[in-house]
Amino acid sequence: MSEKLNKLKELLGEVSDINRAASVLSWDQQVNMPPGGAEARGQQMATLGKIAQEKFITDEVGRLLDDLKKEFTDADPDSDDAAMIRVAARNYDKAKRVPPEFVAEKAIVATKAFGAWMEARSKSDFSIFRPHLEKNVELVERYISFFPASDHPYDTLLDDYEPGMKTAEVKAIFDGLRPKQVKLIKAIRESKQVKDDFLHTKYNEKKLWDFGVNVITQYGYEWSRGRQDKAPHPFETTFSVNDVRITTRFEAENPMATLFSTFHESGHAMYEQGIHPKYERTALSGGTSLAIHESQSRMWENLVGRSLPFWEHFFPALKKTFPSQLEGVSLKSFYKAINKVAPSLIRVNADEATYNLHIMLRLEMEIGMVEGTMAIKDLPEIWNTKMQEYLGIVPPNDAKGVLQDIHWSYGSVGYFSTYALGNLVSAQLWEKINKDIRNLDDQIRVGNFSELLGWLREKIHRHGHKYDPQDLVQKVTSSKITPGPYVRYLTKKYSEIYGL
Amino acid sequence: MSEKLNKLKELLGEVSDINRAASVLSWDQQVNMPPGGAEARGQQMATLGKIAQEKFITDEVGRLLDDLKKEFTDADPDSDDAAMIRVAARNYDKAKRVPPEFVAEKAIVATKAFGAWMEARSKSDFSIFRPHLEKNVELVERYISFFPASDHPYDTLLDDYEPGMKTAEVKAIFDGLRPKQVKLIKAIRESKQVKDDFLHTKYNEKKLWDFGVNVITQYGYEWSRGRQDKAPHPFETTFSVNDVRITTRFEAENPMATLFSTFHESGHAMYEQGIHPKYERTALSGGTSLAIHESQSRMWENLVGRSLPFWEHFFPALKKTFPSQLEGVSLKSFYKAINKVAPSLIRVNADEATYNLHIMLRLEMEIGMVEGTMAIKDLPEIWNTKMQEYLGIVPPNDAKGVLQDIHWSYGSVGYFSTYALGNLVSAQLWEKINKDIRNLDDQIRVGNFSELLGWLREKIHRHGHKYDPQDLVQKVTSSKITPGPYVRYLTKKYSEIYGL
Repeated sequence: MSEKLNKLKELLGEVSDINRAASVLSWDQQVNMPPGGAEARGQQMATLGKIAQEKFITDEVGRLLDDLKKEFTDADPDSDDAAMIRVAARNYDKAKRVPPEFVAEKAIVATKAFGAWMEARSKSDFSIFRPHLEKNVELVERYISFFPASDHPYDTLLDDYEPGMKTAEVKAIFDGLRPKQVKLIKAIRESKQVKDDFLHTKYNEKKLWDFGVNVITQYGYEWSRGRQDKAPHPFETTFSVNDVRITTRFEAENPMATLFSTFHESGHAMYEQGIHPKYERTALSGGTSLAIHESQSRMWENLVGRSLPFWEHFFPALKKTFPSQLEGVSLKSFYKAINKVAPSLIRVNADEATYNLHIMLRLEMEIGMVEGTMAIKDLPEIWNTKMQEYLGIVPPNDAKGVLQDIHWSYGSVGYFSTYALGNLVSAQLWEKINKDIRNLDDQIRVGNFSELLGWLREKIHRHGHKYDPQDLVQKVTSSKITPGPYVRYLTKKYSEIYGL
Repeated sequence: MSEKLNKLKELLGEVSDINRAASVLSWDQQVNMPPGGAEARGQQMATLGKIAQEKFITDEVGRLLDDLKKEFTDADPDSDDAAMIRVAARNYDKAKRVPPEFVAEKAIVATKAFGAWMEARSKSDFSIFRPHLEKNVELVERYISFFPASDHPYDTLLDDYEPGMKTAEVKAIFDGLRPKQVKLIKAIRESKQVKDDFLHTKYNEKKLWDFGVNVITQYGYEWSRGRQDKAPHPFETTFSVNDVRITTRFEAENPMATLFSTFHESGHAMYEQGIHPKYERTALSGGTSLAIHESQSRMWENLVGRSLPFWEHFFPALKKTFPSQLEGVSLKSFYKAINKVAPSLIRVNADEATYNLHIMLRLEMEIGMVEGTMAIKDLPEIWNTKMQEYLGIVPPNDAKGVLQDIHWSYGSVGYFSTYALGNLVSAQLWEKINKDIRNLDDQIRVGNFSELLGWLREKIHRHGHKYDPQDLVQKVTSSKITPGPYVRYLTKKYSEIYGL
């Protein structure tokens, strides 16, 4: 038994090495690569992807998994090895179902579609992207057809990002959430608006960078096992549990984004840094799902980083760093400004109160596309109608509407809802944390995050991919993902800020 | 035929992709990686190396090469395809001869030996390193045994770095060179010494960096296909013909090294940037040998970058950049200072006149080790005796003597002579270039390097690995590698500087 298990670990370890090498190439592409390097880099990454796939779906791996599944039938389901075999077998089954020719075709279609999307967005002309999106959706349908029928065709897509999660579950969660968020936003819109002009003035990039670095150092992000660089689109990436990197960016018109982006990515990174090293090079390495990952990034960005106790500690230092920009600005005014709610056209700029509505709109449209109940040609209009309904605003053009996100351009469907689920999980964990750590606010008020991080390490991080997302949330909070805590969180926070 | 050729190119293209991915990982390791990342990175690079090897020495590649060699028997030997098949077949034959278990054993021994060398050097205690070096040399002998007997066992090692080059050839070249260099150094030592104290004062790192960047931009290094970073040991690395990167370093006690290191690495990089793109992902990509590579780096560092015409152009700008450091320093004094000859203990710090002697000493010792005529235990003493003989100085300890270089620590034997051969080739090419471009000095005097770079592109760079080093030098200069030009170059240069 142990011999077969060791052999499996050896083989999957190599696959992991190749995938993580590909991550290094991707990081370099986004952070360092000179423009000339793009073509060869694409080729190199394609080759690594192909080899990782080939080495994963061999008959040998299949036989080992079959044998080990049998041998572990009666094992403690909580044992690491049993979990590793279960997750690896599921990944193997998925990978085996998708023919290599399909993967190759999808890559080619996606590359063309991405180019068309770039052009369409720059010209704000949906018709340029439309045939490519139709082709992408066709491929999505073909992808679904490789898998056994489930309750809903969208389940197959969702499962790739949130293992075990069903479309019906997500719909139910969002149905419980939508009316409450819409109502909250209406109430906010009718209240006295907050002032935030002092946030949109000139801030020194280097000083913002240093401030962010100082904060996440206090959070507990470990620099001996990570680094931060600049990139056009901020992201976190993992080369090993001891090399977890983040990026941030500077936006002249929205300088505070440098800080909050750093906080956000540090949340992803501390998750990865906290995974038990014994899972390295196995199917249990990495976070368990995108939603759980997003719960960590959102927690450090928002529940911690946009909270009043946090700024009670950090505002004096910020004011000292930017004396002219923040002259005469009180802690309360600053706190309100960074939490200003304003329905906006662009998802990535959305505040906490409106963000999820951007997601629900996209989820409904993705389900419509997959079900075939929404024609691609009608998407721009559907988008605009839903924006009016949920947020009360309508994009002036498709570039600021249906064309704004990159995801559909490369055929990624099923991803969006993880962002909103992450928000929900962050609040659900937060309620539990505040039960377990009674004086958490006081700790944050003095810049002490160690008990919070310790809690997350113990309850979430160290498990890696051992538990599926719903099981993990259940285990930790005694409930599956539910919208209640997030609604309570938003209502309390914004009632105070807007005097609702 | 074309089908088999295409298949071979496809298979070898993937091997090239993996090797270049490994180069990205190695670059990142030296430039960016946080300390925690080391262990996993080592594992990832080992896996990539193993897979590249596995994918290269398959029976399919072997059969394709056999078939194609037959089919190309009567092909124009100058055809790219014939050359590609010839070089790939040679590499394949070499790779097949070395058992994978040997490669694995060597890696383990080397890792341990490297650690021991680090400790031995820091304590200046050869006895710590000695058993590991003995083991390394045993493995070198075993490596040689995998290959057919040649005129000299050292030939096998040399061939890995300088394809086709024989030990007897290198010995003959060096025998012609040694007495002349020793004589020159003696004459210099007896002359009036040059003053260079103004070079060893405080220089601003950022300004040196910018100055170097400006120079190599004028050289013709293309930034859209490259970049420069800082690293503890400067190097050039190639991810594709369109992504060729360099590194440099800052040494407080020798600030000018930042400049000359940048010039040096840019020479390697312009070689790689100039290789014909059609050779990408084939056995003909990359420079043809280490000596030819070194001829390019040395040319831009020394024959161009330490020449009087060069500084006639750049010295006013340098003086403007460092007005206090260079106050009262004339162009001539500066030129003499950067060309100061001073026998020194450490190879990497050696000047043009003494550098090759450091190499000859090492070559003689490597040959002695391989022949078994020098016992490892005697190496420190042999080293010191030869230092006295060639350079007239004796190291005060082994750290500054036999333990100074990293090469032997990881079992690399056969490499050193390429440094000296590179110097010779640079001068040999330089004589030819100055026949073809009559007013080259005048061009350099006004900072115009385009005709020089054009010549190198045409004669050397674009060919990549198509011609073996001796054939290439013969083709371009109508002579194999010979010490004459380098001796003439040194004698002329130093006669002027030292008034010999």
